[in-house]
This record gives sequence, structure tokens and C-alpha cells, in this order.
Amino acid sequence: MKEFRLGIAGLGTVAQGVLRVIAHNRKIIAARTGVDLSVVRVASRNLKSSVDLGGAQFSTELADLYSDPAVDVVVELIGGDTTARQFIEASLAAAKPVVTANKAVIAVCGNELLSEYSSVPLRFEAAVAGAIPIIGAIRHGLVANSFEHVVGIINGTSNYILTAMQQSGVAFADALKTAQELGYAEADPTFDVEGIDAAHKLAILLGLAFDRPFNFDDIYIEGISAITGEDIRYADELGYRIKHLGIARQTGAGLEARVHLTLVPKAQLLASVDGVQNAVLVKSDAAGNTMYSGPGAGGDATASAVLADVLAIAQQGSAESTPRNFDPQQQTPILPIEQVRSAHYVRIPTRDEPGVFAQVANALSRYEISIEAAIQKQPRTSKDLVAIVMLTQVTTEKDIVAALAQVSELPQVTGNIARIRVETLE
Amino acid sequence: MKEFRLGIAGLGTVAQGVLRVIAHNRKIIAARTGVDLSVVRVASRNLKSSVDLGGAQFSTELADLYSDPAVDVVVELIGGDTTARQFIEASLAAAKPVVTANKAVIAVCGNELLSEYSSVPLRFEAAVAGAIPIIGAIRHGLVANSFEHVVGIINGTSNYILTAMQQSGVAFADALKTAQELGYAEADPTFDVEGIDAAHKLAILLGLAFDRPFNFDDIYIEGISAITGEDIRYADELGYRIKHLGIARQTGAGLEARVHLTLVPKAQLLASVDGVQNAVLVKSDAAGNTMYSGPGAGGDATASAVLADVLAIAQQGSAESTPRNFDPQQQTPILPIEQVRSAHYVRIPTRDEPGVFAQVANALSRYEISIEAAIQKQPRTSKDLVAIVMLTQVTTEKDIVAALAQVSELPQVTGNIARIRVETLE
Repeated sequence: MKEFRLGIAGLGTVAQGVLRVIAHNRKIIAARTGVDLSVVRVASRNLKSSVDLGGAQFSTELADLYSDPAVDVVVELIGGDTTARQFIEASLAAAKPVVTANKAVIAVCGNELLSEYSSVPLRFEAAVAGAIPIIGAIRHGLVANSFEHVVGIINGTSNYILTAMQQSGVAFADALKTAQELGYAEADPTFDVEGIDAAHKLAILLGLAFDRPFNFDDIYIEGISAITGEDIRYADELGYRIKHLGIARQTGAGLEARVHLTLVPKAQLLASVDGVQNAVLVKSDAAGNTMYSGPGAGGDATASAVLADVLAIAQQGSAESTPRNFDPQQQTPILPIEQVRSAHYVRIPTRDEPGVFAQVANALSRYEISIEAAIQKQPRTSKDLVAIVMLTQVTTEKDIVAALAQVSELPQVTGNIARIRVETLE
Repeated sequence: MKEFRLGIAGLGTVAQGVLRVIAHNRKIIAARTGVDLSVVRVASRNLKSSVDLGGAQFSTELADLYSDPAVDVVVELIGGDTTARQFIEASLAAAKPVVTANKAVIAVCGNELLSEYSSVPLRFEAAVAGAIPIIGAIRHGLVANSFEHVVGIINGTSNYILTAMQQSGVAFADALKTAQELGYAEADPTFDVEGIDAAHKLAILLGLAFDRPFNFDDIYIEGISAITGEDIRYADELGYRIKHLGIARQTGAGLEARVHLTLVPKAQLLASVDGVQNAVLVKSDAAGNTMYSGPGAGGDATASAVLADVLAIAQQGSAESTPRNFDPQQQTPILPIEQVRSAHYVRIPTRDEPGVFAQVANALSRYEISIEAAIQKQPRTSKDLVAIVMLTQVTTEKDIVAALAQVSELPQVTGNIARIRVETLE
């Protein structure tokens, strides 16, 4: 039996999950892996007296974790940015293996850390999609594949809000309020609702699948706050669900790397992933389409991923930490959003007058954009107004933006045009 | 760069997939892992001149693979039973690491092979659910969890037939014929259609999740050949899909290990897994419900899993082959099928006479079986006959069998009673 001793930074939900899962499953883990896990140190700003530390020594000094020779692996669960990064770096510099759930640090500084301290393991399965072992799937299960796309629902808060709006017909603000009451959204929900959190995760998936440095700035980001119940209903009528997706895709022209609301056909498994669940769909040349779903957050769920990394380090040491070598010559460029090609859902509020639809169609045809389907809808508010709702065929972002700019100039158009990208994911 | 040389036994679909995937992705794999893969030997009864061996030496002697010092890993893809087992054993005895896609050999003799040759890696990701890295998920991603259940659609042929019957209303025999024409079913479909193949895979999942020796005889097996279009339609009306599931579950009374047709609520993701796709749903204490889906067969898809194992061996050597130690004292007994508790779908063909339903309800109530829902249906064949279709509440197999034996004695009952177990998978 090999003893393996954790030093945990942080004492929040995930840290408590790690303590709890070890307390519950220590014996079964030992029988399965030959590794006897224990938490010997916990460091946090404040001691929460309600938490059972199971005999671990408490300290308010993070440095106590990596300077203690009794600690075999440091687990960074303080979150945030600068302090976490400095702590991870100091731990690696002290030759302590590190496991982290911190997507922001990996997405922004992961390369520097991995390359500067390449002989010390640094693992981050918990940073993307919580309990779902998606990093293991990409790095090991699918390691022999060339990837075509990695597309995911990777923010549970946003998915909860969209699901609530779709299933109960509540407005965005009300769905957000409920999410906050249930603890699914923070008091300041910006990171989740504006897509920053999803973009951190997508930057990691993009780097892993397409063998390139993690780079948060590669990601084009839109959040979910522009969504309306009207668009959710029309999409439903057209056979789609609206999901907030992270999309990383290899195309002939370059790599797509974008986070935004997306119409997904209802028949797609991803369309049925509801509430706080996460799911990642991977398309690769040998394995084809594989999908991974499960809880994207939560103390025990995230602890499951953290401990998978801890045990991999205990079992393999640094055997596996192949340096991520990137040949700058080989790097596919990131496609600017203007050049991304996709179909679009468009809703145009207009006055109910003859000839409007023809003028809209004309504006689109000037940019060679074909209409796949169109419905004309009377909103509840007024009998003089209609909404022209369309699905376009695939076109470039640049062309649809230009065409809709012309449409918005039409005298009959009475308000802002809604546009949401469509993905069939085939 | 580490060179790693494969010797492949077999030259069928999967072997050709391995050759093809290496030819396509050798460079990307090398950049990603530091391992340069090549196939140096192929052994098979017959040389297929249409297959590009990419420079590998061909032989009709399997022994040439493990006796060649130039071979670093042997890949067993001949399938079947005795020959494959002997070949795997001889390779391990020659200290050659083995990767196999052979579910039958692992389900039946996996323990002996793994324990007798514990210092030589033997890996089998491709043996369960093709491209889906489910073994990696259970052994690594979820390694810190206690498992509650592992439930899967793990035979693509059966799922194709059930999907075709459900979506196109074709009869079993016709769906099977189409599956054979498309290459999804063998000329002799017994292994797939009677659940043997699924049981092999479930025996492996059961052993891994519940830390016990693989034992094919643990599995209770029913196939899909008793399914009728009528039952598929009634299930649909009640809100369910009929799937052929492998179910491994920890209960207070013992372990369930069973393969059979099952009603699954349509809202369950598993109910939407159609055609030749496979999917495995895992419920565990820390990670909660996670699901894994993808192609369960096919040359390139299976090759993806084979090469994941090959690369793990190349990168980790025997670092990871923890012996599977089982304490006989700790082994939960397998629950005999008679003691398994579940809800049931029941279809009773009867004459359309007053009082029949009451007599059926009485027979069930004698065994304290409650009725959850019931519908009475006029089959197309005759106006004097009806079908009483019911969902029961959870009961033991023993009780429902006894109750339905009494029902079948009723003079109004005109034919065989259909019974299918129901799982909500919550």
C-alpha cells in the first residue's frame, strides 16, 4: 500500500467535497488502486468550524502546504486568479505536484506553468465540466484521433436558466433569480451569464484537442442575456432548442473558437441535456461522434475529478507528463468571427404591411444568403406588428451581418433584429 | 521520440482500422504523446491483398508476433474464443504486453490472465462499447467513486433493430434482415440478438465497477427476439422507449447483473440513443449520473480504443497495472433474478368481457402488486379481443411471475402474456 497525502488550499464547497469523498471511499480506493489517500493539511483564510477536517492540520498560510515534506500533492481549490496562480507556481517550484480545478488559471497561464515546470505533474480534469472525465477522454481515450470538433454545454448556470425559460416560460431575469436562490448562480452572475466561464473551459478544450497552447484570447464570447422567451418559442416551433455552446472546430479555413447561444436540432442528444447538467460532444476521425454528459459543478462531483487526478499522480508519478510541444509552423490560425460560416435564426420585428418579406428576402439575396424556412408571427402585443422569423442556409458571419444591417434600415422594421447561430452538429 | 511497434493478430475490420488510423494519424500522435507508432507484423490465416499493410511483415503464424523481439505490443483482433485465449496467454507468457478487443475472452478468462501475468500489461478498452472510453472512465475518471449502477445500451445490433421497429414500424424479422444487409448483424445473429455479446460486456463492467472478478456466469440474460411492434407502440403511448439494457446495480440485498429488454422513460437521455449507437449511464456517489455515448462498433471506432490502450502501455509501461485484488469476504453476492425488484410492463390478451380487469387486478393484489397505470386496447385483429396493458409498481420478480401465472389461468385470457421490466434510472 502506497500512502499519498494531500494538502488542500481552500475550504469551500469543492474542498469539503474532497474531504467527504475521501472519508467515504478511502478503503474502496485503496483496494482498487493500492493508494491510501489522506488529507494531512488544509490552508484557508478562515477555519470553518463546521467542517470535519478528519485530522488534517489547519493553517491560514498557503505556503505551509508546499513547504511541508509530508504533503505529496497540493490541491488548489481557492479559485480566482492572481493568488491561485502564484500558489500553483510556488508549489511547482517547490517540486510539489499540483491538482487544480481552476479553469481561469489554466486557460490564461496554463502553458507557462506546464512548460516551465514540465517535470512536476500539474493536472486539471476538474477545470472543465466538473465530474465528467472529458479531459481524460480527449487526452487518453481519444488520443489516436484527429479532432473535427469539440462542442459543449459547459456552463451549468446558463443551461439552468435556458432550460427554465424553455420549460416554464419564465423570463430571463426570473430564471436568473431562481438560479441564484438555488445556489446555481453567484450574486454577481457575470462570469457565468456572459460566457467568460464557458470561454475559459473552451480555451482548455481547444488547446487539448487541437494541440495548441491554451489561449483565452482565442475565444469569441457572447453570453446568454440577450435571450428572449419569444425566440425560445419560435425555435421550438422550428424544431430546435436554444443552448449556450462552446464550439471548437477545425475547418479548412482555420479553427473556430466561439461561445454563444446556438440553435440545436431537438433530435441531437445535446438538445436534451437540461438544467445544470453539462455535456461535451466530440467528433473525431476514428471514433466518430462520442458524447459525455453529467454534473458540471457541485462539491462531490468536482471532488470526483480532483481525486481522479490525485490518484493518477500517485500511480504514475511524472511518467505521463509528456511536455506539450507545439510547432509554431503547424499551428492552424484561429478564424476571426467575421469569417465563421454557419446558418442563422433571424427574427425581424416589422409592421404588418404587404411586401416586407420580399424586401427582406431581397436584402439577403444581395449577399447570396438563401432562406431555409420562414414563418410570420403575430406577437401578442399588437395587431399591426408581425415578426418575420427565418432560418438561413449556411453563410459567413460577415455577409449575414451586412445583410441584416440593410434589413434594419427598412422603414417597416420596428425594432432590433434578433440573430442566433444554428449548428446541426452532424 | 519513443518508437513503439505493434504486432497485430487478425486482418478483419478492426485490424484494418488500426492500420488505417496509424497511417492517417501517426504524426499527430507522435507530436501529442512522444510515441511513434508503427505496425511491424501482421498475422492472419489469409493475406488479403487489398489491405495496405504499410510495410508490416505478414505471416500466417500467430506465434511469429510474440516471438519477434521487434514487436513491443501484441494486438489481438482475431476474436472468438479458444485460439484467441491461447494466443493472449502465450503472448503474456512471452512477456509481451497485450491489447485486445475480445470481450468473450476477458469476460470468461480475464481474471486468470490478469492475475497469472500481473507484471505484463493486458488492456481491453475496445472490448466494451467500441469507441467510447468507458473503461477509462470507470477505472480512472471515476476511480474515487462508489458505484450505484452501470447501465448500458451495449449491443449496437439489438439497438439498431429496436430503433428500426420503433421508428418505421417494421417487424422484428424485417428489421433483422435489414441489419444483416447493412452489415450491422452477422449471418448467424444469435450472439447479438440473444444478449450473449451484451452479457460479455456487462460482465466486464460489473467486475470493474464493483471490484470483483469478471464472471460471465453472473449475468442473467434475455435477448430481444420476443419483442413485438405492439409492445413498442403501447410503451410509446405510456411515455417509454423499449431498449435492450445491460444493468449492473448495487442494492442492499445484493448485486443485480442482468441483460434484457427494458422500458425506459422517454425523458431519460438513454431513451434517445438510437441505431447502432451505444451508451453507458453510470451512477456513482460523488460524480452522480454521468453518461457516455458513441459508436459501439466499426473498424476505425474500435481502432480508436485499441490505440488508446497501445499508447497507454507505451507511455506508462506496467506502472499502472495494479493487480486486481479481491477479498472474498468483501464480495457482495449476486442477486438471483427471482429476487430482483423492478416495475413491470404487462400486456394480457383477453376476450372483451366484463370483469376481466377486476380479476387481473385481484390476482396481482394477492401478491401485493399495485397497478401504476393501465390502458385497455383493441388489437386490429379482432373486435372480440382486447389487450389489457399495465405498468405495475415495483415488486419482486418472483411475485410478478407467480401473479401472472394465475392470470394466465383465467378462462378469458387468450394467449401469452408479455412482460417487460421497467427502469426509471433515477
